[in-house]
Amino acid sequence: MSSVQRCLVLGLVLAAVCVAAFAQQPPPNAAAPKPARPRMGIEVPKLGDGPFVYDTAEHQKIKVTIAARGLVHPWSMLWLPDGGMLITELRGKLKLFRDGAMKEIPGTPEVRAQGLMGLMDIALHPNYAQNHLVYFSYDKLTGNPAVPNEAQLAVGRARFDGNSLVDRQELLTTDAYRVVGGTASRIAFDRAGLLYVTSGASNTNQAQEGDSLLGKVLRLRDDGTPAPGNPFAGKPGFRPEVYTMGHRNQLGLTFHPVTGVLLSAEHGPDGGDEVNVIQAGRNYGWPLVSFGRTYEGPRVSENPWREGIELPLLYWVPSIAISGIAVYTGDKFPAWKNNLFVGSMRVGEVPGTAHLERIVLNDKMEELRREMLLTDLRQRIRDVRQGPDGNLYLLTDEENGVLFRIEPTN
Amino acid sequence: MSSVQRCLVLGLVLAAVCVAAFAQQPPPNAAAPKPARPRMGIEVPKLGDGPFVYDTAEHQKIKVTIAARGLVHPWSMLWLPDGGMLITELRGKLKLFRDGAMKEIPGTPEVRAQGLMGLMDIALHPNYAQNHLVYFSYDKLTGNPAVPNEAQLAVGRARFDGNSLVDRQELLTTDAYRVVGGTASRIAFDRAGLLYVTSGASNTNQAQEGDSLLGKVLRLRDDGTPAPGNPFAGKPGFRPEVYTMGHRNQLGLTFHPVTGVLLSAEHGPDGGDEVNVIQAGRNYGWPLVSFGRTYEGPRVSENPWREGIELPLLYWVPSIAISGIAVYTGDKFPAWKNNLFVGSMRVGEVPGTAHLERIVLNDKMEELRREMLLTDLRQRIRDVRQGPDGNLYLLTDEENGVLFRIEPTN
Repeated sequence: MSSVQRCLVLGLVLAAVCVAAFAQQPPPNAAAPKPARPRMGIEVPKLGDGPFVYDTAEHQKIKVTIAARGLVHPWSMLWLPDGGMLITELRGKLKLFRDGAMKEIPGTPEVRAQGLMGLMDIALHPNYAQNHLVYFSYDKLTGNPAVPNEAQLAVGRARFDGNSLVDRQELLTTDAYRVVGGTASRIAFDRAGLLYVTSGASNTNQAQEGDSLLGKVLRLRDDGTPAPGNPFAGKPGFRPEVYTMGHRNQLGLTFHPVTGVLLSAEHGPDGGDEVNVIQAGRNYGWPLVSFGRTYEGPRVSENPWREGIELPLLYWVPSIAISGIAVYTGDKFPAWKNNLFVGSMRVGEVPGTAHLERIVLNDKMEELRREMLLTDLRQRIRDVRQGPDGNLYLLTDEENGVLFRIEPTN
Repeated sequence: MSSVQRCLVLGLVLAAVCVAAFAQQPPPNAAAPKPARPRMGIEVPKLGDGPFVYDTAEHQKIKVTIAARGLVHPWSMLWLPDGGMLITELRGKLKLFRDGAMKEIPGTPEVRAQGLMGLMDIALHPNYAQNHLVYFSYDKLTGNPAVPNEAQLAVGRARFDGNSLVDRQELLTTDAYRVVGGTASRIAFDRAGLLYVTSGASNTNQAQEGDSLLGKVLRLRDDGTPAPGNPFAGKPGFRPEVYTMGHRNQLGLTFHPVTGVLLSAEHGPDGGDEVNVIQAGRNYGWPLVSFGRTYEGPRVSENPWREGIELPLLYWVPSIAISGIAVYTGDKFPAWKNNLFVGSMRVGEVPGTAHLERIVLNDKMEELRREMLLTDLRQRIRDVRQGPDGNLYLLTDEENGVLFRIEPTN
């Protein structure tokens, strides 16, 4: 079968999936369908009070403390210049955690909170100290009367006046998700003040369509317009916001603090989680090629790779359900300098052990080894960040989620 | 660079590695070089008395009992028709475990026991009930006076008279390992009475050389001569024993009891463990292509795959240090019927969690999901077999190794 034929077949299959998916959507307030078999996976043990103390592979002993409780599926976090912390929750709330107290910050956009969709990432404008601008990614209904519950990804910003988000603006909306469910979105500013936005397209061909904003990394000015010099600008059939294409579902995004290299964490299907080095104009392959399998068993693609497709920097088979990522550059854990940390959310339906993973890279960003941490807690790690104090902080994607602080024991 | 050029360069590099490796070998009784840094990895906890009880992902509760202790790096096991169990130990001993008592069986061949090398797999002749023939794979010195400690892989057989191995014969020896260290070898008979032997070639190009018996699956008659109909028989530059080529280091081998498909478990480098479906005449790629990286960081091959190379049925990134494999077909664990079990030995220098892994395949042998079991014990699982009683049995590759029995709790 030629590429064109394969593409056509894929397109038709996806169109059918799409129609079927929307057709099957239950009407509002319909009873949820009962699961046909008992939920797979062993029970996640109730999280104790901690602190939890571990030895680790490079003899760095750590203490894991629950710094905050009561977060409902927290998604992302950042530190304000005054030391306070903003935390998003998937269902749409924004929390401010300061001096041990948690309070809600009003003024967030109305989000479509269902399944994977909702309020996701949050970032400060590089010039936040002056303009107090906060950026966020979220899902919203398109309002298309022909397709109830049709959703799209959006990026917005607002000014944080210390108590509320004010002067909120919607900067960008993508084309609609063609199947229900949505995907994740991370956002990050580079050193030049440009904003990078990840979008996903797990079950459609949109990642390979230049005129779709889904399945991409987008690069924008701080006002949401396409960044100057974007690689496909002016190319027929391509949106000028597109920076890279061929992405499935990107749950992590970070600039390497030392090298400035942009790293994106991407969910594969069953097998095939990746960390990619994001470079202008490149194609990362989804859904043309993948190391993974569909959940029914067959491989996503006959071959795991083809000429012209970027190889991931790191990949995981089986998938760990990769999420937030961070490069550690602090002084608290000398043995972990420049290590990459990634969250794993793999428990429940897909058996596995959610954990924090540490990856040692050499100076050329080539992988040397990995270590799984906190496996016994079995908490879904949604986000990982280095704090201003040089400790590591984690958010757990649980109904009763927590903020973990990891510090050396000595 | 063309394939030929690449091959040439590879050959030269490997030749240099080889010379360097033999040159660096310490003289007998020389003091071992001191490690430059503390050994990586967290301490493996002392194994308790058990039994250890677990819930598992498909609600199959299990009890893990220590059935026997005091095995020194046990490697393989099988059951005799009378219910007794033969167990090999890497350093060269053969043990008989019957009615709770362990005794040593003399008559094993002299083996080169160092590093990965020694006495490895053991198998019964299909007609054992009549001829009492036992087959085994092992490493031995070549006796080449020009290269002290030069070793090779061998396959032998002997008659087990109930107390000793007698009438021992050496059936096959391979060409010498070109670098020190050796590789693993498993053996298994098919339904037609032909013997399959795995050999490895981790650090040389021998896996791609038709006239080398290393880095291959070999197929033999029960007397050690090449099996009739072997795919390369009569082809210039190929040994007639060769059945498949391009293998790195195969630590597991089993026939699927239902389908008869031959499965081989292969160690990748850092990333790239595989289970392959072994089919006559195919090339599995080592060291031309690999999903893995060298231990210094760079990828083994620019591309993870190329036309004409077999894709693995299953692969693991990062590596779990895969070892023995078995397909479960008993009645004791109904939810695990036709699941593939593989041992993982990944602890110590390479951080990780040694465990038993369960892989669910659909009717087309396509992977559906995996589960890690016994992770908290952190025991290196060298072999896994289904016992005649329908329970699962494991050997741990430890200085004080054990035989585990896994049975349902009900």
